[in-house]
Amino acid sequence: MGGDRAPHMAIEGMSLAAHADRSLRFQVFGDATHIEPLLKKFPELAPITEFTHTPDVIKSDDKPTIALRQGRNSSMRLAVDAVVKKQAKGVVSAGNTGAYMAMAKIFLKMIDGIERPAIIGSFPSASGACVMLDLGANVQCTAEHLVQFSIMGNVYAKEILGVKSPKIGLLNVGEEELKGHSVLQDAAMILRRAKKTVNYYGFIEGDDIAKGTVDVIVTDGFTGNVALKTIEGWVTFIMSMLKEVFNSSWLARLGYLLSMSAFKGIRNQMNPQKHNGAMLIGLGGVAIKSHGGADAYAFSNAIHVAARMVSHDLNQQIRDSLMQLEKDLKKNPAPVAS
Amino acid sequence: MGGDRAPHMAIEGMSLAAHADRSLRFQVFGDATHIEPLLKKFPELAPITEFTHTPDVIKSDDKPTIALRQGRNSSMRLAVDAVVKKQAKGVVSAGNTGAYMAMAKIFLKMIDGIERPAIIGSFPSASGACVMLDLGANVQCTAEHLVQFSIMGNVYAKEILGVKSPKIGLLNVGEEELKGHSVLQDAAMILRRAKKTVNYYGFIEGDDIAKGTVDVIVTDGFTGNVALKTIEGWVTFIMSMLKEVFNSSWLARLGYLLSMSAFKGIRNQMNPQKHNGAMLIGLGGVAIKSHGGADAYAFSNAIHVAARMVSHDLNQQIRDSLMQLEKDLKKNPAPVAS
Repeated sequence: MGGDRAPHMAIEGMSLAAHADRSLRFQVFGDATHIEPLLKKFPELAPITEFTHTPDVIKSDDKPTIALRQGRNSSMRLAVDAVVKKQAKGVVSAGNTGAYMAMAKIFLKMIDGIERPAIIGSFPSASGACVMLDLGANVQCTAEHLVQFSIMGNVYAKEILGVKSPKIGLLNVGEEELKGHSVLQDAAMILRRAKKTVNYYGFIEGDDIAKGTVDVIVTDGFTGNVALKTIEGWVTFIMSMLKEVFNSSWLARLGYLLSMSAFKGIRNQMNPQKHNGAMLIGLGGVAIKSHGGADAYAFSNAIHVAARMVSHDLNQQIRDSLMQLEKDLKKNPAPVAS
Repeated sequence: MGGDRAPHMAIEGMSLAAHADRSLRFQVFGDATHIEPLLKKFPELAPITEFTHTPDVIKSDDKPTIALRQGRNSSMRLAVDAVVKKQAKGVVSAGNTGAYMAMAKIFLKMIDGIERPAIIGSFPSASGACVMLDLGANVQCTAEHLVQFSIMGNVYAKEILGVKSPKIGLLNVGEEELKGHSVLQDAAMILRRAKKTVNYYGFIEGDDIAKGTVDVIVTDGFTGNVALKTIEGWVTFIMSMLKEVFNSSWLARLGYLLSMSAFKGIRNQMNPQKHNGAMLIGLGGVAIKSHGGADAYAFSNAIHVAARMVSHDLNQQIRDSLMQLEKDLKKNPAPVAS
């Protein structure tokens, strides 16, 4: 029920996703007056979909605390509950981010050994794609949080992006070992010892995000959120300037028509809808957050991310990595200051 | 003597700057064997230039501590000294950033009431241009530092960009009053009371940088540096993708030729060389840092920024604003928690 184009884009997104992945099965939670007519529009969903009518909806401006207290019969809460009760393997929502995260954290709990969930997402880059976390769940982080983010990002890049030995970089203001906060230096020290757990590259700077210097960019949720939104703002800005350029004269318009097919490629690569499906990683269950502005295609991508999380059993791999980290740290003790 | 294309681009940059601004007078510090032949190439500089031979040069990888100790006869140090001794009104260098900042801070000292200098720079945005600080001088900041940055950014936007009543925004991860670090909330509280000193807008997010929501973006040096370099990386990335698009077929190439003149406009607007001349604001004297990769045009822009700083007497205006702030804070006491 959440998101700018809901619930239509959610049901159409299910149809698109089911078309691409025949193994999918759905449980839908929402208002019958809206959902039932939509389900009739996509009859192919009938045999693979179970619908539950929910009278309440979490509104986009509801405070998380209010949503938790008053939203017990909301579509969002019941969808999360289905994962808690193991009736579903994962949940996807385009609704109120704060409320969704609060519910996911409280009811799905955390993986043992992960202290904080992080928002992870993927970006296009000069070398293909990279993942970045935390994109906004934790404004302040300790070195241990950053190490846990590195482990989760590593597993995600391996399993979801298919990178064999992902390079992990810590976002900083310089590459030298002594640059930045002490939290970053402490995290780097631990990651250097985690030789068999992760392929730690070192500190990276803001321009390395687009360069694709590493596969996994690790940062606190404040810096990550600023970087993410700065990129979104600039991509929109440049695209609107391009539009202006092509409308500036009839010659330019003709030029656009001639190069249009090539342009579609670039627009596709930049398309935020393609990279939809930021998720809270570190939870005891799979919970994917679709962009509120998602269309059906973007929503189907969020569904695919959820399905891949489940089929690759990311959480088990994160648990295994945490055990490997413990072994690594025992084997490679911290250097003693001389 | 510093910078990738030095000293040629510096001397040529002087010539370009002198052409545009007849009031400029130069003192040049550097190695005579390199500088003197260059000065002969630009004879128009002879009557307005005083040259001092300096035997030593600060190398780009010298540590600031080494540069301070061993660089007493370097071109950089003697150029800074000329401002200290009031023989020059400002200094411009494209050399080693760390060494330059250390020298500037130690020898030019700070404006009374400003605790930390900040790196300030201007960016293109959807509404024209905006300034952002701190771009990397201070990894950690207090609320008071952010308030001082706001005052300096305000004066800069007024005098250098010509904005009448610049809107000041604090970079955060959400617009709501309770979002982000306590440092940001404390700074916002002070800025709300500084009614006659600045036009405080509120919290902004990363995408507001390109949108031009405010004229002055205030943030700590860690976040500012990451945002700056993230933008630089993405602009380069998108430009290289565009190049690829236009080379992808003969139709696309023809399209480019037709729209080329319009494209030049966009490239010009994005041109980092145009926005050259980041500076340390808050110092007792004018010290401009040109990009190391600057060409002559970019270097001339850095010279113009220095000249404008001097002619508009930015430092006096910053002192006046600090006095206004004191009055404002007395008149509008902090709200008492109830």
